[in-house]
Amino acid sequence: MRIVSAIVHGKFEWLLTTDRGYYRAGALAQNLGVPSSSAGIETVIEGGDAVIDALKVWQRTIEEEGIAPDESQVELTAPVPRPGKIICVGLNYRPHVQESQMQIPSSPVLFNKYLNAVIGPNAVVNPPSDAEQMDYEAELVVVIGRTASKVAESDALGYVFGYMNGNDLSDRGLQFRTGQWLLGKAADGFAPMGPYVATRDEVPDPGNLDIRCFRNARQVQGSNTREMIFSVPFLIHYISQYITLAPGDVIFTGTPEGVIVGLPEAERNWLRAGDQTEVAIEGLGSLTTRIGSNR
Amino acid sequence: MRIVSAIVHGKFEWLLTTDRGYYRAGALAQNLGVPSSSAGIETVIEGGDAVIDALKVWQRTIEEEGIAPDESQVELTAPVPRPGKIICVGLNYRPHVQESQMQIPSSPVLFNKYLNAVIGPNAVVNPPSDAEQMDYEAELVVVIGRTASKVAESDALGYVFGYMNGNDLSDRGLQFRTGQWLLGKAADGFAPMGPYVATRDEVPDPGNLDIRCFRNARQVQGSNTREMIFSVPFLIHYISQYITLAPGDVIFTGTPEGVIVGLPEAERNWLRAGDQTEVAIEGLGSLTTRIGSNR
Repeated sequence: MRIVSAIVHGKFEWLLTTDRGYYRAGALAQNLGVPSSSAGIETVIEGGDAVIDALKVWQRTIEEEGIAPDESQVELTAPVPRPGKIICVGLNYRPHVQESQMQIPSSPVLFNKYLNAVIGPNAVVNPPSDAEQMDYEAELVVVIGRTASKVAESDALGYVFGYMNGNDLSDRGLQFRTGQWLLGKAADGFAPMGPYVATRDEVPDPGNLDIRCFRNARQVQGSNTREMIFSVPFLIHYISQYITLAPGDVIFTGTPEGVIVGLPEAERNWLRAGDQTEVAIEGLGSLTTRIGSNR
Repeated sequence: MRIVSAIVHGKFEWLLTTDRGYYRAGALAQNLGVPSSSAGIETVIEGGDAVIDALKVWQRTIEEEGIAPDESQVELTAPVPRPGKIICVGLNYRPHVQESQMQIPSSPVLFNKYLNAVIGPNAVVNPPSDAEQMDYEAELVVVIGRTASKVAESDALGYVFGYMNGNDLSDRGLQFRTGQWLLGKAADGFAPMGPYVATRDEVPDPGNLDIRCFRNARQVQGSNTREMIFSVPFLIHYISQYITLAPGDVIFTGTPEGVIVGLPEAERNWLRAGDQTEVAIEGLGSLTTRIGSNR
């Protein structure tokens, strides 16, 4: 299933989405064990496999039930609007490490974003006034479905709720102002996600997905998640040795080569107001973000 | 006022605390505009100055109202049990920078912890199994009271709800495993806070507070917050240029000298199972944390 979060008539809802539109979980869905749409996606995530199974049954009947909201009233937000944690992995594709002139890490490099960074599809980011080196980073984002502490790599994918596109927006000037990257990674709007989260049954192998990024419709990144240094199962295993993961936590799994900072200095044409970025991972739709003014 | 959060008879509450005990906001308090204790401290924080004023009026009457819960039933948690952000400042006292053999930063060095790290007073931390260089860091923690975006330094203290003790527990091996400190700072239980948050009217100058840390009752850190490189108002100003702060967010403002990693290598006697640390900042009570087993 593909699930979006949205503001509909002023209220947060989760909605099922298909090629035909959006569907709200009404009375029939609730009879099948699907949480009310107005309860928020957290209820779906915390519901575990029982709710996913109920969603599958309901998906077969939604066209009969036919209670799609008026699409003009649906304003998509990030699929998980308030993740408890946003954990990010740096330097996780070898050619990106090389273009960044860094060393291949022997352990995952972890950093974070906060809730202020979360935005949905088709949103505008207004960078901080001294952000002058704005860059994109197409990334596969994992949504955790179950509490995970010290899990084995072989069990790790069972703790996943689903997957979505993410853009680890970064201002390189702020990122490298001190040794800690946070400032250049965590500014308001720097974590676009969406448009939908695909439940894990839709993504049989997160380690074999084409991942692309476009800048103003020109492709600038193109790789496959099989090129990750640390795989999705290993990352969940590793992080959970230290940090207990909770339902709704998200993990940005790193970006492949093709970012602006990877170019020779004279060729670095940083993102500017009016630019549009698009992240498109196989099966996860397309996440468009527009750069606004920083004045 | 001094406010704690606690689990009482299995439910989260906030309670007013005085030298005489804990007080629950009952019907009389609510007539005065004080939120119900069962509504959680978030309601108090988001209530702003109106609620602080109501608390002050109520505090004068609480002994007459006399609805203190049975203390044996009060299990203190962190005063803010679920902060939206935990922002930490590194290298913010000059002698600590020197003992750490780092360079004096020209801008605040920022990193983070997540919700899994939050624990209250008198709690036990069980470090990760490969944490072999556990260290304490006594820190003044600021609790944000109002949404803060791009605030002037001169206005910054008006955005504060209150202050509390914090211990930025750190495992040095994990902290320096990669260039990003997160792993050694964000493990489960690495953010003890409390025992209470003192509202800002109790702390006229956060830039002049004695700050001490004890290990097994022996003093190991002793300084004053006036020694900070970046003051509390500057930190709020600076961070809010990039990251919109929300009510209930907390900022760990850095530790003074005296940590274990600051000693010559041969003298580093890392925290071990059974050790007790205590952070005591002037006017903020005493925060005790015990190191448990990592096996």
